[in-house]
Amino acid sequence: MIDFKLLKKSKKSNARLGVLKTPHGEVKTPAFVPVATQATVKTLRSDDLKETGTQLLIANTYHLHLKPGEKLVKSHGGIHKFANIDLPVMTDSGGFQVLSLGFGRDYGIGKIMKYDSGEIITKGSQPKLLKITEDGVEFTSYVDGKKIFMGPKESIKIQESIGADIIFAFDEPTVPTATEEYTAESVERTHRWADACLKARKTNQALYGITQGGRYKDLRIKSAKFIASRPFDGFGIGGEYGSDKRQMVKMIEWVTKELPENKPRHLLGVGYLEDMEMIVKAGVDTFDCTVPTHYARHGNAFTSKGKVDLTKTKYLSGAASKQPLDPECGCFVCREHTKGYLSHLIRAHEITGLELLSFHNVYYFNKVIEGIRKRIKKGEL
Amino acid sequence: MIDFKLLKKSKKSNARLGVLKTPHGEVKTPAFVPVATQATVKTLRSDDLKETGTQLLIANTYHLHLKPGEKLVKSHGGIHKFANIDLPVMTDSGGFQVLSLGFGRDYGIGKIMKYDSGEIITKGSQPKLLKITEDGVEFTSYVDGKKIFMGPKESIKIQESIGADIIFAFDEPTVPTATEEYTAESVERTHRWADACLKARKTNQALYGITQGGRYKDLRIKSAKFIASRPFDGFGIGGEYGSDKRQMVKMIEWVTKELPENKPRHLLGVGYLEDMEMIVKAGVDTFDCTVPTHYARHGNAFTSKGKVDLTKTKYLSGAASKQPLDPECGCFVCREHTKGYLSHLIRAHEITGLELLSFHNVYYFNKVIEGIRKRIKKGEL
Repeated sequence: MIDFKLLKKSKKSNARLGVLKTPHGEVKTPAFVPVATQATVKTLRSDDLKETGTQLLIANTYHLHLKPGEKLVKSHGGIHKFANIDLPVMTDSGGFQVLSLGFGRDYGIGKIMKYDSGEIITKGSQPKLLKITEDGVEFTSYVDGKKIFMGPKESIKIQESIGADIIFAFDEPTVPTATEEYTAESVERTHRWADACLKARKTNQALYGITQGGRYKDLRIKSAKFIASRPFDGFGIGGEYGSDKRQMVKMIEWVTKELPENKPRHLLGVGYLEDMEMIVKAGVDTFDCTVPTHYARHGNAFTSKGKVDLTKTKYLSGAASKQPLDPECGCFVCREHTKGYLSHLIRAHEITGLELLSFHNVYYFNKVIEGIRKRIKKGEL
Repeated sequence: MIDFKLLKKSKKSNARLGVLKTPHGEVKTPAFVPVATQATVKTLRSDDLKETGTQLLIANTYHLHLKPGEKLVKSHGGIHKFANIDLPVMTDSGGFQVLSLGFGRDYGIGKIMKYDSGEIITKGSQPKLLKITEDGVEFTSYVDGKKIFMGPKESIKIQESIGADIIFAFDEPTVPTATEEYTAESVERTHRWADACLKARKTNQALYGITQGGRYKDLRIKSAKFIASRPFDGFGIGGEYGSDKRQMVKMIEWVTKELPENKPRHLLGVGYLEDMEMIVKAGVDTFDCTVPTHYARHGNAFTSKGKVDLTKTKYLSGAASKQPLDPECGCFVCREHTKGYLSHLIRAHEITGLELLSFHNVYYFNKVIEGIRKRIKKGEL
């Protein structure tokens, strides 16, 4: 179980300062949550995590179900022992991946659901390779093409086997093109699934309910009220967040306003650097995002002077190349290596470069959110 | 400069125990030398190296000349500062890559020059995309297709800019299909280049001369005698080593017999686990090999119970999967992770898995050679 203590509420915004106690340690909130999709933060080692300032991880139910399978993780004593991770861990419910990977295959849409035309998926909005029923979602495994069924019962069972500190209720995130009519049906289904998850749970892992509602204010508020009324240990805010950052913040505020103050709120899959302050001010306690590791694997570092694309020749030579990536950063990469060497590693396609940038980026994200915590404490946010 | 102290000569074989002192520390010999082609051991971080028991590295003149260029390395204060490596470093002469990559392109031959038919390259034996003249080799850059010329003067100049502790004379390694006539001409050229290198050197880096001679005993002995007669600080044994392991050992012994006892001998590009004892017994002090990192990147680990292919499902589950990769190994990977988790990472294509296996494999190779040193000390080898 978890225990959430609200330490301070900002007078200037909905920002909150808190401590989330879990069986694997405490998390100072607001906190950034690196993604460990397949039971590792990509390119990092488990003994790197604390050094990057990471307090909490989120692993992926859908991916771990397919590979290596939750039974295997359980047979190793759960995800903490399996991956030798001495930090609190969440698992998402699997709903997002089931849906986004399904749509992705049908419509060439990436995992982050970016596409141009609102007309690709119209009425009905059911992707071809998925079948959504009252009991859950039938989909095709990307590993071996087998039909797999996942619903609230299955998701909870899988997450109980994986054994994270915090698990999420199974939900149906809607895509940006979903009609109001479809979204309303979907929200109702997500609510029935939320109750089914509460009924199915057998462990004392913390269970977060997920609020949905797409871009529709009424549905967002309705969903937040419903999920808030149930005995969840915390709340997830899921689905799509509108067309721009301002709309995203508004949508998050519609939801957080309805949620009980004494329980933690997790924003699923959002956390670009430039979003952090906004989402915290909208009342979010934790949020996960693959950006630091994803960008690192493409040669990009985040620094106090902005994003640095180390694939460019300009970072290879000259006086600046002898400087650390970020002279203001205290991470081991910035203490031990120069921008020029890192750029060489990236340009020479050395895996070592991806590791060093990933380490730095995760550290940097954790430092930025640490700064935000300090500003809330001082009453500046 | 370096200083080599011969501590013990085996009575049972040509094995030797020694200490090689360099400006960046001492190397207990015989020693395994991991390869840092592009100024990093692939997937490892510079702060991993000492923990793997690594004493000496070899970087690649040809690759560093093309990327990022020796001038850049020099502007960063040389390879040690550039890559933040606090260990002795060698650079090879570039001759092997120039030739193997040239032949590789012409005849579809891998870098390790394995091919079936002895008739692909016959009389003359000059690859099409290379032009070997008295002054050196003209070849085409794999980076941008530009014509590049490298000869003894160029190689030494590049290696002086890179700034390793030990550098090698520029040579022409011959391929297994080279005729005796061609090999004889080539050996003479390598000898003229050796003298040109001695003349060209301007720094007090240690300079090793490379002996060649292909599979021809007379030429091997002739080359060893010639190179041994010159004021080199140590000696490299290069080129091809015959068709089987026994022939390889004989060839190495033809050479080491002719070399002065008080100077170190390095065997270039050989060091499979099963070769180690043989090459040490043939009188070799140091040898480099990409096998531990190369195999790791293909999911293979070396252990005291043999090679383990972690891509196989059998390592994922069952009682053995909860054991370390090698229960007899003391490396951090074996202390902190199970075979099952490592197999999961490899099977899920996680870069983290490649790093962990590379770390273990390099550690393991260093442990095996440490065991060989102990056996020489005890008079058992």
